[in-house]
Amino acid sequence: MTDTSKSQAPSRRSLIGWGGAGLALGAAAAGGAVAMARTGNDVDPTAAETGAPVEFHGAHQAGIATPVQDRLHFAAFDVETDDRAEFVRMLKDWTVAARRMTAGQPVGEGAYGGLAEAPPDDTGEALGLKPSRLTLTIGFGPSLFEKFGLADMRPEALVDLPKFSGDNLDKNRSGGDLCIQACADDPQVAVHAIRNLARIGFGKVVIRWSQLGFGKTSSTTPEAQTPRNLMGFKDGTRNIAGTETDRLKKFVWVDEKDVDEKSAWMTGGSYLVARRIRMHIETWDRTSLQEQEDIFGRDKGEGAPVGKAKERDEPFLKAMKPEAHVRLAHPDTNDGATILRRGYSFTDGTDGLGRLDAGLFFLAYQRDVRKGFIPIQRSLAIDVLNEYIQHVGSAIFAIPPGVRDKDDWWGRTLFSREA
Amino acid sequence: MTDTSKSQAPSRRSLIGWGGAGLALGAAAAGGAVAMARTGNDVDPTAAETGAPVEFHGAHQAGIATPVQDRLHFAAFDVETDDRAEFVRMLKDWTVAARRMTAGQPVGEGAYGGLAEAPPDDTGEALGLKPSRLTLTIGFGPSLFEKFGLADMRPEALVDLPKFSGDNLDKNRSGGDLCIQACADDPQVAVHAIRNLARIGFGKVVIRWSQLGFGKTSSTTPEAQTPRNLMGFKDGTRNIAGTETDRLKKFVWVDEKDVDEKSAWMTGGSYLVARRIRMHIETWDRTSLQEQEDIFGRDKGEGAPVGKAKERDEPFLKAMKPEAHVRLAHPDTNDGATILRRGYSFTDGTDGLGRLDAGLFFLAYQRDVRKGFIPIQRSLAIDVLNEYIQHVGSAIFAIPPGVRDKDDWWGRTLFSREA
Repeated sequence: MTDTSKSQAPSRRSLIGWGGAGLALGAAAAGGAVAMARTGNDVDPTAAETGAPVEFHGAHQAGIATPVQDRLHFAAFDVETDDRAEFVRMLKDWTVAARRMTAGQPVGEGAYGGLAEAPPDDTGEALGLKPSRLTLTIGFGPSLFEKFGLADMRPEALVDLPKFSGDNLDKNRSGGDLCIQACADDPQVAVHAIRNLARIGFGKVVIRWSQLGFGKTSSTTPEAQTPRNLMGFKDGTRNIAGTETDRLKKFVWVDEKDVDEKSAWMTGGSYLVARRIRMHIETWDRTSLQEQEDIFGRDKGEGAPVGKAKERDEPFLKAMKPEAHVRLAHPDTNDGATILRRGYSFTDGTDGLGRLDAGLFFLAYQRDVRKGFIPIQRSLAIDVLNEYIQHVGSAIFAIPPGVRDKDDWWGRTLFSREA
Repeated sequence: MTDTSKSQAPSRRSLIGWGGAGLALGAAAAGGAVAMARTGNDVDPTAAETGAPVEFHGAHQAGIATPVQDRLHFAAFDVETDDRAEFVRMLKDWTVAARRMTAGQPVGEGAYGGLAEAPPDDTGEALGLKPSRLTLTIGFGPSLFEKFGLADMRPEALVDLPKFSGDNLDKNRSGGDLCIQACADDPQVAVHAIRNLARIGFGKVVIRWSQLGFGKTSSTTPEAQTPRNLMGFKDGTRNIAGTETDRLKKFVWVDEKDVDEKSAWMTGGSYLVARRIRMHIETWDRTSLQEQEDIFGRDKGEGAPVGKAKERDEPFLKAMKPEAHVRLAHPDTNDGATILRRGYSFTDGTDGLGRLDAGLFFLAYQRDVRKGFIPIQRSLAIDVLNEYIQHVGSAIFAIPPGVRDKDDWWGRTLFSREA
């Protein structure tokens, strides 16, 4: 009953109906551009309120050093096609769509409903919504390099994560050939973006798992109020800020010095570790305040490190219990290992035992996971917090550098070497 | 390892740590009170931006005629205790907590972290957040009336919903002795509220199922932009507005005329039908624009009824296909049946087949479901939309009248008759 034949003459109706909406959106995008938010430095602090767009192009992908948006939709995809050219075409189509959606425009040019006889180019649910600082960030998982003759392009730094103490990983929430991280201040904008990329990828890729995050737990804007995780504690107080160019260079962006010929395509990129961390919040909620504060190494109200008065006071690690979370995760305990955190709280209904399926969807960006997440997570093996949490999903992705301009596309540095 | 013994002397530490945060919150609540939003009439249109509190007390519960907030956490509970006095105590404790949380205050009085040796009265993750127009609305399901000697108090209007054409209900997403609808502009505030009520109810009730909604699909403020559902269409254009006192009285609030002696406790209340409606969005997205518009009976861009130019133009039903959604759901097709819709879009990851588990969590309030949801849903049996949706969860609840003042409590009219 669905007629997908393509007539050459657009119907008057689709031109009237959709053209009008297109004008309204164009005006919104133009207005938004006045307060254009940038990645890294040069961030307009009013962008969150105005719903302005974030610049899609740059040396690095947006969505890493970008001030953390309020909501997340993260999707891991598996590749279904074995046709490299088809896959590259999809990456180019994705890039065009991502460029438009992050600017607050619908997928598809012109009277974007297209022909009445064809499915709309855009699914429509973000129509009339602000750009909402949407960022779309692509990553390539280890398993992608088993396809398309990419084996010799896999960077050594894209390791398979070791099994950590206490891991209880569900393969249906782990891994993936590709990932897209969609962050926006409006969840409908983030969900719309993932859905439209999945739609464009139909037949080439399929969603392996996806995760909605409703509340950011880490900030990359230290002047803003530090968010709290679902254990009620401030989280990410000492996170790398989007404006700390030196720390970003040192800990987040892959440098020319890090790569060899086969991994040169990663220069300017980063590595992402995603972990779905279930919290046993019902148990936590029956734990005394003192115990909770001892476990974190901070007080709950203010967020100050043990023995200090203010959240941002320098922690004195020796004042904390040896297994306090802040102490174990601190760079001084881990040879300086530092990661940029961008995690979100999640609540996905109940688990069949009357307990909320809630926790932290942990996202960490780093220059090299072997000097970032891995040593930190090993250090946390004795963390008392482990009695209240469980890692149930895990994935690692190589995050390629940014899309430089309107002719560039996601993955070009990886796929165009021989092209 | 958890010490829950209660010492009489609050520790200096907890007083310092939590007292400071309490002051900050007190100031926020005081500031918010200036722009206090009200249920029904007298709505401050700036409340959404200021994050102001919604008044908890009133003849009707808040969260029905209240302007629809952006986010939802809905939980259905089953009762575990058979001790009526214990259950009533929990309802009173819930009321106290709900009164505080909707005002933007943490659960628990004073230095609300309480004693360091005891679990905190509040789980903490909403600390420092605005009241965010949080409303908490309680409902009683049919199965509750099989407990506590309530059988003769069950209103006739609280029917068991019939099986509808196409229903594919999952019992793990259906039913429940009790429900709490938490709506707020900040999802963390809504999640925090449900979690703290579940915590207070520990041992007395247990969550049966819960649902997060990320985007409202119906508005009760016609002056605002009409939201779009995940099919990309504007939804709820002709919904009952929170300011339409006459229509609320006619279609939403239970009147004295509706009740007999056994159901007199429902005067001023309402009836809620909740349906989890999965959308097969991948199939929908491959359907032509013309087909989509024919199915809804509106155009996609503007939302105008067939043959009309503007969204709010009066629909001419005979211009639509006989099985168009707008036509089938219209009061003129259903002897005037009218419901107040308050639904939310959801996306709960994937379904194991690479498809997004997404759709509409439909919430409809009405004076009598036998003259509201039931005839409308029966009429929709021939809706072509049914090829793209499936009802997978269902519940019905009697929504008691509002809590009148600070001495009143949720369910008093039901539970105090013999007390």
